[in-house]
Amino acid sequence: MTNWALLLEYDGSGVAGWQRQTGQITQQSILEDAAAHLNGGNPVSSVAAGRTDAGVHANAQVAMLSLPDRYDAVRVRDALNYHMRPAKLVVVLAARAKPDWHPRFSAIGRAYAYRILTRRARPVLQLGHVWHVDHPLDLTAMSEAAKILTGRHDFTSFRAMACQAKSPVRTLDRLDIQDRGDEVVISAAAQSFLHHQVRNMVGTLKLVGEGRWPPTRVGEALAARDRSAAGPTAPPQGLTLTGVTYDTDPFS
Amino acid sequence: MTNWALLLEYDGSGVAGWQRQTGQITQQSILEDAAAHLNGGNPVSSVAAGRTDAGVHANAQVAMLSLPDRYDAVRVRDALNYHMRPAKLVVVLAARAKPDWHPRFSAIGRAYAYRILTRRARPVLQLGHVWHVDHPLDLTAMSEAAKILTGRHDFTSFRAMACQAKSPVRTLDRLDIQDRGDEVVISAAAQSFLHHQVRNMVGTLKLVGEGRWPPTRVGEALAARDRSAAGPTAPPQGLTLTGVTYDTDPFS
Repeated sequence: MTNWALLLEYDGSGVAGWQRQTGQITQQSILEDAAAHLNGGNPVSSVAAGRTDAGVHANAQVAMLSLPDRYDAVRVRDALNYHMRPAKLVVVLAARAKPDWHPRFSAIGRAYAYRILTRRARPVLQLGHVWHVDHPLDLTAMSEAAKILTGRHDFTSFRAMACQAKSPVRTLDRLDIQDRGDEVVISAAAQSFLHHQVRNMVGTLKLVGEGRWPPTRVGEALAARDRSAAGPTAPPQGLTLTGVTYDTDPFS
Repeated sequence: MTNWALLLEYDGSGVAGWQRQTGQITQQSILEDAAAHLNGGNPVSSVAAGRTDAGVHANAQVAMLSLPDRYDAVRVRDALNYHMRPAKLVVVLAARAKPDWHPRFSAIGRAYAYRILTRRARPVLQLGHVWHVDHPLDLTAMSEAAKILTGRHDFTSFRAMACQAKSPVRTLDRLDIQDRGDEVVISAAAQSFLHHQVRNMVGTLKLVGEGRWPPTRVGEALAARDRSAAGPTAPPQGLTLTGVTYDTDPFS
């Protein structure tokens, strides 16, 4: 068998997230069901860099699966894409995985982007890919709050109650607030994130952008180490996994 | 009655273009049907800066219509948006039109962007908003050809046979080819365009990008003043009307 590294793009709309679950359509089940066609109908299991939630998109998820030795990279990509049609999931690139490489454990960074549409009119061209907040946000205040979250912290206040990570400590390398006309784009990068961390940070930054919270309250929420001290979870459709980094690019 | 300038955003998918046509859903009919609710049920007619084709999108179309004097700008925008739901068409901004202002005749510039996805995997996040060309294009050659098209020319070879403009002469102010990873974005700006001009230029530039035409052949096609001398019409879904300019911004 050959291990393949796959660069995946998917639209999370109407899909129950990455992870295979009985009775649900998930990105993992779509991929694995397609891969079974290349494995004589036998099940294939896959692993991804991160388990995105229901409704969350990815333009650069990275996964790995094993297939019989008889395929080349072009055939793996094209055959998986053929069998996944018409799902909103494609293999953009496939490459032979190096020995000891693991999409999750070898990853040294993950990047996400969260889009908020801040105008009165409902989303049209951005439909399903933004959180619609129908009024302007104060980006200066949001940037100030984002600075407080950046760095190494105990993010207990920003992780889902169901989060299974052993430690709530993470180092947030970057949390940028960008002004793109009627959109605010929040970009986050870290070696890894806790469950719902990005969406919980975004839900909290929105309160700051609305002037309902002073930026300093974000520091207090962080210090509280209590989920109820931070803001609500932002909805999934605004979030996209935009990149996973490794010491060596698995696709180069 | 008050004349209102409207900034519109729409998704062209599944809609028969801007212009009202019997038995078809068009952006104009959706807008005018919504406006009739604000006019005691009486018909309202509208005019736009440009008539986009079926399947073409707009993030900044400009239109005008007249309504009874009793509304303010916020109410016009919000009420039209309410009545247009769930169509993929919204009023982003509404403003009282200045006397003598006309969305079409006062316009001094139109800008379009055309997106080509140049990868093997089918579109997912860009679905319905790109032309899928499943191989790379030579952007240097395309830029060279684009330079030939820029400026004042007789664009007979690049206009639809059905084009009703009196003169085939237009001044193309800008035709840029941008590399955005696995997308090529072609941006075009002019005071006005002929029917299908952008899509016919894109269909021709693609032949150059594929190496099937040397850039110089675009000059020969232009000189021929014959539609059959240029390339095919690119599909509508890659095209977006991105801006209309006036001496004075009608929304400021």
